[in-house]
Amino acid sequence: MKDLFFSLPEAVVVGNGEFPSHEIPLQVLDSSSLVICCDGGANSYIESGRTPQFIIGDGDSLSTDNRTRFADRFLHSSDQETNDQTKAVRYLHSKGIRRIAIVAATGKREDHTLGNISLLQEYLHMGMEVTMLTDYGFFVAVRGTQTFKSFAGQQVSVFGLQTQGMRSQGLKYSLYDFTAWWQGTLNEAEGKEFTIFTEGEYLVYRTYQKKDSNLL
Amino acid sequence: MKDLFFSLPEAVVVGNGEFPSHEIPLQVLDSSSLVICCDGGANSYIESGRTPQFIIGDGDSLSTDNRTRFADRFLHSSDQETNDQTKAVRYLHSKGIRRIAIVAATGKREDHTLGNISLLQEYLHMGMEVTMLTDYGFFVAVRGTQTFKSFAGQQVSVFGLQTQGMRSQGLKYSLYDFTAWWQGTLNEAEGKEFTIFTEGEYLVYRTYQKKDSNLL
Repeated sequence: MKDLFFSLPEAVVVGNGEFPSHEIPLQVLDSSSLVICCDGGANSYIESGRTPQFIIGDGDSLSTDNRTRFADRFLHSSDQETNDQTKAVRYLHSKGIRRIAIVAATGKREDHTLGNISLLQEYLHMGMEVTMLTDYGFFVAVRGTQTFKSFAGQQVSVFGLQTQGMRSQGLKYSLYDFTAWWQGTLNEAEGKEFTIFTEGEYLVYRTYQKKDSNLL
Repeated sequence: MKDLFFSLPEAVVVGNGEFPSHEIPLQVLDSSSLVICCDGGANSYIESGRTPQFIIGDGDSLSTDNRTRFADRFLHSSDQETNDQTKAVRYLHSKGIRRIAIVAATGKREDHTLGNISLLQEYLHMGMEVTMLTDYGFFVAVRGTQTFKSFAGQQVSVFGLQTQGMRSQGLKYSLYDFTAWWQGTLNEAEGKEFTIFTEGEYLVYRTYQKKDSNLL
C-alpha cells in the first residue's frame, strides 16, 4: 500500500454516499479487520462483493434481500437525532475503538456531504481520531498546533472552525482566521510536512495527488 | 420544464466540477441564452456537444485543442486570489447581470465543493441572485426572513451563517441558530412553502425529489 500519511485505522465505517472507486479508500477498507456499514451504504458494499460484519441504522435504506440475508449482523437504531454515520461512530466508540476511517461519506446529496464532513468535529470532541477518505483526498479534524505529513505539490485546504491566531509553515499561502469556508481552499504543501499554528479547531483536507489541472 | 421553484436565470455558469447528468440542471443550462464556462468546465461542456459563448480562467485547465478552437471567446484572467467560478460571476456582474445559475460546481474534489458552495454568500454580498444546481438539488444564499416554495416531503437543509434567532414555519423540524453545518441537515418541507425567520444570512438546499431512501 502507498504511504498514506495516516495510521491504519482499527475500524472502517462505510457511509451512505458514493461507494469509493479510488484505490486508496478501497485499500484502507479491505485491509481493515472491522467494517461497519451504514444501512444505506451496505447495499453498495455488498454489491461490490464484500460481506459486512455489522450494519447499523433504522433499516429503511437496506434492500429487503439484504435485510433478510444479514439479519444476524444488523444493529437497529432508530434515533432521529443523529445520522447513520454518527450511529456507526458511536457504536465503535462504545467498543473502545478510537482510530477509525470513514469511506463513502461524500459524493451524493451535497447537504449530506456537508453534514458528514462537519460531523468530524463532533467526533473530535468524543475523543475519536477519524480520517474521512474520498476518491480525491482525505479530511481530518484536529485541535491546536499540529504538524502534518505531506509531499511537495500536494493540494491542501484548511477549514477553520473558530480558530484564534491561525498561521502556518510549509504551505504556499499563509493561513489566517478564516470567516468563510472558501478562504482556506486551494493551498499547497511545499515539502514533506507543514505545520498549522492555532488554538482552535479546524479541518484539513489533503489530496492523494499533485494538482492535475485536467482532472481536478 | 418542471416547476423548478426558482426564476429562470439570465445566465448560467458551468463550473469545474462534475458535469450535470440530471435533467433539471441540464434543462436550465440548455434554456439559457448566455452560458459562461470556467476553463476546467469547458472541456466537459464541449464534449457534451455544446458550444460555449465564453470561457473564463487562466487557461491551464483547457485542452490545447479547445484553447485553439475557442480562442475568440476566451476571457483570460490569471487572478490568483479568486477561483474560476468567482471570475465568471464577477464577469456577469460587470455586465449588469444579477440572476444566474451555477451548474457543475460540485462532485469532484470535496474542498472545491465546500469552497464553491460557501462562495454563494460572497455573491449575495455582491447583490447577485444565484441558484447553484447539482444532480440532487439546489442551493441558494439568502438574508433575513424569507418564504421558500416547496412540496410536501421535499428534503431541505439549512446552513446558518451567523444567524440570530433563527426559527421556521412549514418545516418538519424547527430551526435554531446552528453552530455546526450538520445541525440544519435532514429537514423536510411539510407543504407548498416554508418560511425561515432570522436576521442573518444562511444557505438553503432543497432536493428535486422526495426522500427515496434507496437512492439518497
